[in-house]
Amino acid sequence: MDATKITLDESELPKAWYNVQADLPEPMPPPLHPGTREPVGPEDLAPLFPMALIQQEVSQERWIEIPDEVRSVLALWRPSPLYRARRLEKALGTPARIYYKWEGVSPTGSHKPNTAVAQAYYNQQEGISRIATETGAGQWGTALSFACGLFGLECQVYMVRISFDQKPYRKAIMELYGGKVQPSPSEATEAGRQILAADPDSPGSLGIAISEAVEDAASREDTHYALGSVLNHVLLHQTVIGLEAEAQLQKAGEALPDVVVGCFGGGSNFAGFAFPFMRHRFDHDKDDLRVIACEPASCPTLTKGEYRYDFGDTAGMTPLMPMHTLGHNFVPAPVHSGGLRYHGAAPLVSHVLQGGHMQARAYQQLECFEAGVQFARTEGIAAAPEATHVIKGAIDEALRCKETGDEEVIAFNLCGHGHFDMAAYAAYFAGDLEGHEFTGKMLDENMKALEGLPTMAG
Amino acid sequence: MDATKITLDESELPKAWYNVQADLPEPMPPPLHPGTREPVGPEDLAPLFPMALIQQEVSQERWIEIPDEVRSVLALWRPSPLYRARRLEKALGTPARIYYKWEGVSPTGSHKPNTAVAQAYYNQQEGISRIATETGAGQWGTALSFACGLFGLECQVYMVRISFDQKPYRKAIMELYGGKVQPSPSEATEAGRQILAADPDSPGSLGIAISEAVEDAASREDTHYALGSVLNHVLLHQTVIGLEAEAQLQKAGEALPDVVVGCFGGGSNFAGFAFPFMRHRFDHDKDDLRVIACEPASCPTLTKGEYRYDFGDTAGMTPLMPMHTLGHNFVPAPVHSGGLRYHGAAPLVSHVLQGGHMQARAYQQLECFEAGVQFARTEGIAAAPEATHVIKGAIDEALRCKETGDEEVIAFNLCGHGHFDMAAYAAYFAGDLEGHEFTGKMLDENMKALEGLPTMAG
Repeated sequence: MDATKITLDESELPKAWYNVQADLPEPMPPPLHPGTREPVGPEDLAPLFPMALIQQEVSQERWIEIPDEVRSVLALWRPSPLYRARRLEKALGTPARIYYKWEGVSPTGSHKPNTAVAQAYYNQQEGISRIATETGAGQWGTALSFACGLFGLECQVYMVRISFDQKPYRKAIMELYGGKVQPSPSEATEAGRQILAADPDSPGSLGIAISEAVEDAASREDTHYALGSVLNHVLLHQTVIGLEAEAQLQKAGEALPDVVVGCFGGGSNFAGFAFPFMRHRFDHDKDDLRVIACEPASCPTLTKGEYRYDFGDTAGMTPLMPMHTLGHNFVPAPVHSGGLRYHGAAPLVSHVLQGGHMQARAYQQLECFEAGVQFARTEGIAAAPEATHVIKGAIDEALRCKETGDEEVIAFNLCGHGHFDMAAYAAYFAGDLEGHEFTGKMLDENMKALEGLPTMAG
Repeated sequence: MDATKITLDESELPKAWYNVQADLPEPMPPPLHPGTREPVGPEDLAPLFPMALIQQEVSQERWIEIPDEVRSVLALWRPSPLYRARRLEKALGTPARIYYKWEGVSPTGSHKPNTAVAQAYYNQQEGISRIATETGAGQWGTALSFACGLFGLECQVYMVRISFDQKPYRKAIMELYGGKVQPSPSEATEAGRQILAADPDSPGSLGIAISEAVEDAASREDTHYALGSVLNHVLLHQTVIGLEAEAQLQKAGEALPDVVVGCFGGGSNFAGFAFPFMRHRFDHDKDDLRVIACEPASCPTLTKGEYRYDFGDTAGMTPLMPMHTLGHNFVPAPVHSGGLRYHGAAPLVSHVLQGGHMQARAYQQLECFEAGVQFARTEGIAAAPEATHVIKGAIDEALRCKETGDEEVIAFNLCGHGHFDMAAYAAYFAGDLEGHEFTGKMLDENMKALEGLPTMAG
């Protein structure tokens, strides 16, 4: 029987995170204070984050030790399995060997708990008793509720109102883990009240929910803020994925992969998988490593966005970050990959893309769902709509190998299951999914709002 | 760091199923033909099942080899992890050591694919190209659609209409795997047409859906029938769970467990976990092994049912089976544990219970959800409503150990995740869950319909 699943023992769970900042060929531009426009210092971030995470945000150490308390919670599902996609290879008729890392085995069904656990731990260590956050589709709010529950912290989730109304079971699983869920915009914050005054029926947005969570955290001594993607420390915590995958490929008798693929929203599942492999590119162990980010055509941050300073939220309360952005006022089309609908990109990924060390592709949701169906019927896993983007990207690479006859190793990160997202598949089978255009005109209009903000040059 | 998760390598996946029939201290009464009332022979079952499964149904061999083609699909998620429930132990303050086997890592989120894969394989081997089945809540229909997809078989699912209407995403995941879903009662079968003629708005029931699937299979040359629980061969296929758990406990340095607990619907997840351990009771290696089945108080088949011959379906088309039954006309209250709402019990489990080798308990759904919430907040897993029954049973055992001070080993089978069942948790948190009474009067009325059927004595 040929091996299909490569597992690691609990004792092989990585003992340190990989910090790509230590290996960057070019220095990162600093984030800027939203008021002064000066580089942000630790003291600026202290009301929102524990010092350990602020240090990780700027650390230049290559390896950062994972506390035992964090590892022992991660061990509830980690190391996650790596699969050789033998059935998919056969269906495609490709000479490529395809491997995928499967993050859907986590308690909440995605990669999100990898950082939620670490963030909850460091906050608890600093005496914080409550964390505020936002959630769109619900995966991040669920992961943080889960992690806060295990560390005895209260978790306050501002959930985009339209999702709150449409997905009552998402509220239920957050409550199951002990989280408190508030539809956003809410009357609980000044940011929320202003939006509601202008539009009492506002459906909310991720940008608004971030503004509310940040305000909540900034205004209470016992409370910090937590973000599920984008920031350097979040990407850092996700590197357990790529580090495990590297050990598993070695166990399977493979050298380093030729192609690494991830789906791209804010950047954390992508970077968590790709950065550990990219260190071999920076090290010149594997100069020709190809790294590909797959994003939705309806929210093409990396492929169509501008690399410049922008805010992370709608109200302009977060630091200005150097990133590919579609403009902080951008409202993506209501595609089913809620986790990929963010106007900006993680500054670290933006920087690496700008440096020419990776590439990005945008896919339409219809072709992604087609890939997801093929994957379910060959590999047996019902992937989250977000994850169908990376499946599509990996299939395209495998078909390229079929044309050229190259026996390449393709590795990708399958970040979550679709058991919460069957309504999206139902829409697909009913023929109700649309393509979504993104035009230069939309981008131009959004970019007008950024006039006057600092640019990278200056 | 103390180990919390005990994993096995893919190569340690069991190579044979354990057949409890070889070890039964007393012989089983035979199933009877619904027409002749004579013991059923292989030729009676041939229109419905492949000969390999019919042989397994009556085999007296202790070990039955698992085909490599089946093992290689099971390897997509098996061996599943065994957990030491350290956080739950601590929360309870018990000296007991609690272990649970986690079947929620399967592609469809429950233990059901363990037998679906084997059944699809044997049917394909016999040249069958289509399988008909029924599903209530949807777990079984999903598992069989998944398995049929991987073996290139068509899968026709008759889904209880009220579930079909209430849970459109269940239809979507079956379609994702290539299954065809028909609300039941339907116009496609004589059984369905009769029900619809009498009541065009019939919400359907599991018993009706079984009748339709059996009729579909019996009337087509290319089609067989598949059942997700109750039958001997189904229980056999599930024994990989207990066999793996035994190896994992050994790896954790434990002797055989003192108490084994499972939740009970038709009997397959319970037996799959418990029977391999019970062989040590039949062998006299562990005479004092305690085995406990936990069922819903609203459908108390083992604790209140009568041990006698009854049909498996509403229309009386299946063989008469020797089992604990609430009567084949019994309609359980609409509790959220859809997978535990069946009027009968697996004949093998009924026989073992009747012989005094195990015990059964009935729990109210409210106390089960309470246990489920405690489990989610300690162990991090959102269990299916069905699985909360075994959590409640295990907690009760652990609290008994707390009183007595006994350092017992308690092992239980957590058969699935609740990611499809968050509406049930939402109802729990909203205070909308009810207790459900089961009265002797209900039982008496149901039993009247069984008058005239053969009894065990004669």
